[in-house]
Amino acid sequence: MRIEGTSEIETNMTEAAQKEPLVLFMPSGKRGRFPVGTPVLDAARKLGVYVESVCGGRATCGRCQIEVQEGNFAKHKIVSSNDHISDKGPKEERYEKIRGLPDGRRLSCSAQILGDLVIDVPQDTVINAQVVRKAATDRVIERNAAVQLCYVEVDEPDMHKPLGDLDRLKVMLEKDWGWKDLLIAPHLIPQVQAILRKGNWAVTAAIHRDMDSSRPFIVGLWPGLKNEAYGVACDIGSTTIAMHLVSLLSGRIAASSGASNPQIRFGEDLMSRVSYVMMNPDGREAMTKAVREAVNGLIGKVCAEGEVDRHDILDMVFVANPIMHHLFLGIDPTELGQAPFALAVSGALQYWAHELDIDVNRGARLYMLPCIAGHVGADAAGATLSEGPYRQDKMMLLVDVGTNAEIVLGNKDRVVAASSPTGPAFEGAEISSGQRAAPGAIERVRIDPVTLEPRFRVIGVEKWSDEEGFAEAAAGVGVTGICGSAIIEIVAEMYLSGIISEDGVVDGAMAAKSPRIIPNGRTFSYLLHDGEPRITVTQNDIRAIQLAKAALYAGIKLLMEKQGVDHVDTIRFAGAFGSFIDPKYAMVLGLIPDCDLDDVKAVGNAAGTGALMALLNRGHRREIEQTVSKIEKIETALESKFQEHFVNAMAMPNKVDSFPKLSTVVTLPERKVSSDDGEGGGRRRRRSRE
Amino acid sequence: MRIEGTSEIETNMTEAAQKEPLVLFMPSGKRGRFPVGTPVLDAARKLGVYVESVCGGRATCGRCQIEVQEGNFAKHKIVSSNDHISDKGPKEERYEKIRGLPDGRRLSCSAQILGDLVIDVPQDTVINAQVVRKAATDRVIERNAAVQLCYVEVDEPDMHKPLGDLDRLKVMLEKDWGWKDLLIAPHLIPQVQAILRKGNWAVTAAIHRDMDSSRPFIVGLWPGLKNEAYGVACDIGSTTIAMHLVSLLSGRIAASSGASNPQIRFGEDLMSRVSYVMMNPDGREAMTKAVREAVNGLIGKVCAEGEVDRHDILDMVFVANPIMHHLFLGIDPTELGQAPFALAVSGALQYWAHELDIDVNRGARLYMLPCIAGHVGADAAGATLSEGPYRQDKMMLLVDVGTNAEIVLGNKDRVVAASSPTGPAFEGAEISSGQRAAPGAIERVRIDPVTLEPRFRVIGVEKWSDEEGFAEAAAGVGVTGICGSAIIEIVAEMYLSGIISEDGVVDGAMAAKSPRIIPNGRTFSYLLHDGEPRITVTQNDIRAIQLAKAALYAGIKLLMEKQGVDHVDTIRFAGAFGSFIDPKYAMVLGLIPDCDLDDVKAVGNAAGTGALMALLNRGHRREIEQTVSKIEKIETALESKFQEHFVNAMAMPNKVDSFPKLSTVVTLPERKVSSDDGEGGGRRRRRSRE
Repeated sequence: MRIEGTSEIETNMTEAAQKEPLVLFMPSGKRGRFPVGTPVLDAARKLGVYVESVCGGRATCGRCQIEVQEGNFAKHKIVSSNDHISDKGPKEERYEKIRGLPDGRRLSCSAQILGDLVIDVPQDTVINAQVVRKAATDRVIERNAAVQLCYVEVDEPDMHKPLGDLDRLKVMLEKDWGWKDLLIAPHLIPQVQAILRKGNWAVTAAIHRDMDSSRPFIVGLWPGLKNEAYGVACDIGSTTIAMHLVSLLSGRIAASSGASNPQIRFGEDLMSRVSYVMMNPDGREAMTKAVREAVNGLIGKVCAEGEVDRHDILDMVFVANPIMHHLFLGIDPTELGQAPFALAVSGALQYWAHELDIDVNRGARLYMLPCIAGHVGADAAGATLSEGPYRQDKMMLLVDVGTNAEIVLGNKDRVVAASSPTGPAFEGAEISSGQRAAPGAIERVRIDPVTLEPRFRVIGVEKWSDEEGFAEAAAGVGVTGICGSAIIEIVAEMYLSGIISEDGVVDGAMAAKSPRIIPNGRTFSYLLHDGEPRITVTQNDIRAIQLAKAALYAGIKLLMEKQGVDHVDTIRFAGAFGSFIDPKYAMVLGLIPDCDLDDVKAVGNAAGTGALMALLNRGHRREIEQTVSKIEKIETALESKFQEHFVNAMAMPNKVDSFPKLSTVVTLPERKVSSDDGEGGGRRRRRSRE
Repeated sequence: MRIEGTSEIETNMTEAAQKEPLVLFMPSGKRGRFPVGTPVLDAARKLGVYVESVCGGRATCGRCQIEVQEGNFAKHKIVSSNDHISDKGPKEERYEKIRGLPDGRRLSCSAQILGDLVIDVPQDTVINAQVVRKAATDRVIERNAAVQLCYVEVDEPDMHKPLGDLDRLKVMLEKDWGWKDLLIAPHLIPQVQAILRKGNWAVTAAIHRDMDSSRPFIVGLWPGLKNEAYGVACDIGSTTIAMHLVSLLSGRIAASSGASNPQIRFGEDLMSRVSYVMMNPDGREAMTKAVREAVNGLIGKVCAEGEVDRHDILDMVFVANPIMHHLFLGIDPTELGQAPFALAVSGALQYWAHELDIDVNRGARLYMLPCIAGHVGADAAGATLSEGPYRQDKMMLLVDVGTNAEIVLGNKDRVVAASSPTGPAFEGAEISSGQRAAPGAIERVRIDPVTLEPRFRVIGVEKWSDEEGFAEAAAGVGVTGICGSAIIEIVAEMYLSGIISEDGVVDGAMAAKSPRIIPNGRTFSYLLHDGEPRITVTQNDIRAIQLAKAALYAGIKLLMEKQGVDHVDTIRFAGAFGSFIDPKYAMVLGLIPDCDLDDVKAVGNAAGTGALMALLNRGHRREIEQTVSKIEKIETALESKFQEHFVNAMAMPNKVDSFPKLSTVVTLPERKVSSDDGEGGGRRRRRSRE
């Protein structure tokens, strides 16, 4: 029975019930009438308001805290007062004495309704943190974890009724908590007797209610009251593994961290790892072992940071691109390296974590989100779950740029997805001076359109290169190369300052005008930094970026055609690349279609956020499974129009027919052309083709 | 739709349907009308007639053979003729050419109904063996195995619909075989792609449809057509492990064998093994390892005998007494060694066989029957399933004598069960000249009531000891001791010949009459064989038997009181002891209540038969689970009347009040007192108390 706002409960009410106290829960706004004497926890449960409880109303776990809001809530026609709730009884007083209760807090299992009440379910991080704060975005994940802790007191053995100890435990879990047809993780069977006796017949069972079989499972068992359990959300990227450690009971993020994917030693990019498997008989096994060890290491790291025992981790949700997905699960990814790019399995999967050699609680489960297609993996599914194009009316473009770009476009009516072979140029690979994002890497560039002189910023140094004291500040880190995201900015600035033509050719005639234009064989390069090393942007670098951006744009264009739209309402850049690039320059170069800059957002590791959502709310698992089954997958290699869009998108920005509104980006006076400084807008207008 | 005999199908029929051909299946007698052209296999399925099929109607597996019975079946109003079935088509002819088809046999997937038919579903051992022949009893087990083999042809990968290979396999298993919501054993996930390609997209999947979760599982996968799968039924006894290897597709028993339980080296009887666990920190682990290794060894033995690859074993059913059950499952049995004899778990359990270190197919499941009580184990549940007191009107007594006697008494209205502490005397332990049943052991004894001279037979020698040539025949094996079952016979004969009184005292006064009565300290012994070794029956031996039989009888009496009956209709002796003893002597001594000797049967390893039934028909699993949950468990130690019955049953036979009709056993002229020879009846009548 889920009742939101003013609900049918009130309209269908008898007169007697009308006189029952009215209780309103905040912040959900759910309300209902309940007989005098009803515990607040029961009222919350009946209304579907999420209030945690482990001890089952024994006033020992302290998880069910609430606060009474006093006052006249005229809008809701409720006068709420602390006189309308029962005084603390002996159990609640005992809890307060032993474990402490913040001012104004009550245990909802003990506090009874005496009159009209406005109840606040605290959203603080200790008791009931529903708000997950992320670097880039605030997000509320309604909690409905797959694992629930349930405290029970079990009958002692009785020779007259020789039911086994486990069987009597199940009886109480059904009686006190309503769990029917319970199964148990096999490793616990030999432990049941000792745990029951150690707890003097009082134990806490962890129940997993989202097993791929439909029956609930006892996955953990502890003597006495166990009051905390953790989950892990993990995104296995080709380069980086990212992880959140989170309390399943409060939603509090205990730690977030990342680690390098050690598979890099077998091959820098995805395809070289597939090649490694094909060339080495033990290649698949070695890479599976490496990534699982890295995941175990990262679990150790987040547990140390969050001061959590890794054996308190009971549930895990993973996302990964298709090749990482296969290698982590021990599946040979060879088929993904060649057409028709057949996934071994596309649906969501569940395992015992130990089946994948993950060292957490032996009863922990591991859920892997479904893959969308051979090149659009569980990570894209995670990002889709996080950003939710299918949940809204607006047409959302979701782009995650890596070696391939995963592109999802849609709204609540229809979602299409594709992968575009951008190659690694956007990541700084195949770029002559490219390097990883690390101290010393150039991350921001501006080119004076008159003098053609550059100024830049490097990671680890606050000042711009033309500011006083830059040399001193940069002495420690040096200027070592160009990081992936900065490539976009440099090429866009070279275009805006006229160094390169619309076709992407460095204009050799400019060499007479500026010493920055230098010959390089039969072509010309741009000298960005004349130091050690010497950092230049070559004609080949520009070609690589042109190819990459053409592939990305052609993929987007293809999906826009499938959707029958010529613009998108919002754009979400997922992944590290998206976090670092300036959307304005992406639009200048024609990576993405025209869109109001206010509607373009970098959303960080959206795949990891999706994993976190599926971890904290099992409903999101069904949601993304159903969504993925409905997403229309477009294989760019099979679409003849893709080549056409690709060729058109080679130009900078794109040919007018393929990107009609580009020019508006840099001409309309109200467009905010730079978010981090005030200059440039005027100058850039000069590059307008109008 | 299951339609037995004349069914509603005919009564609710339209006139058009009345004209459809009538098809009768034998031996089930199920019948129905079907449109002309219906494949016979489809008709069988619609009527719930069990006809195996692996290839799904492709005429390649040959499992669905049937025969047409020709003639006028007036009783059924059917004239059946081979003209009423379609000729062999190209597929069936191809099968016949390649693999051969016995005369008169047809493939029911190809043969179509053209007119009225009587169809015989062959019960032969190759195609469809429904009859399981046992040493002691014929038994028909209707087959409904948990594992089914399903051949499918899977769509090749398609870039337009990038469903994973596994996901497309599931689609076809649903489309061709109706399996919904399939899950897959995790170890198969990395193998799916290679198997599909090796089979050129045609594979056979083994589906387990009796997982403890409610969803069906893919547990095995092979390229092309896989046409056979095996199961194992196993009874782990304290002394012996017994095993059947059986085809899950035909029900044919490929091999049956036994092996010693190597736990004997840790302790001869159950309680000494529990002591071993209590005294040795690694004792439980060592015994678990030993029994699992023995089971693996025995699997090797039956597989060699049956010429079966152990990796073709896909399902297993186990029974065991509670302590063997716990040790096999890796559970500490200490609690079973002391009141209140708490089982760690009493309900039925399922595992992956590999979770218990059993080396068969990695996808094999293992089902353990439920335990009834702390001393009445899964073996007693197996025997109960086999003999089925709950399936009949008659009051059945089921007794399995070992170190403890498990006793089940009941009918379809009510079943009660108990364990009685008989001690090991019935097994020949605690008997001065006792030994295991082996060549040289005395197994049959007669005592002349006039001369008190004995004559006996030993295992391995055909002749009785008083027959000519016995000495020569016995020279090879010797006369080495008394086996457990013979003890009953000797004590009964000593009582019938007046050597011992009703109180069980060897009458020293007889020493004057016969040199066979010899002094032994303050008591007297009976000299059974004056050889090397000298074999005597001492007063202590008789006391041990008295205690054992009193315990057994008191337990039976207690259950009879619980049922409110003063007689039982049938008696079933399960186990090795039951197979060797002569029921007549058991009745003379008062081990069991009065019953017509024709209604007393030894049923051999009924526990193993029960395991076999649960293996071949998953319905029997639910049946015994429900039965066990309803059985009333009586703990003899808690029943004050038990002591009273015990004391009364110390006398030989039993005190009249506790066993009123005993005297009739040896007095009524029509009573057959010996089944293996014609003498004795008259003589024995002299012991009557009338």
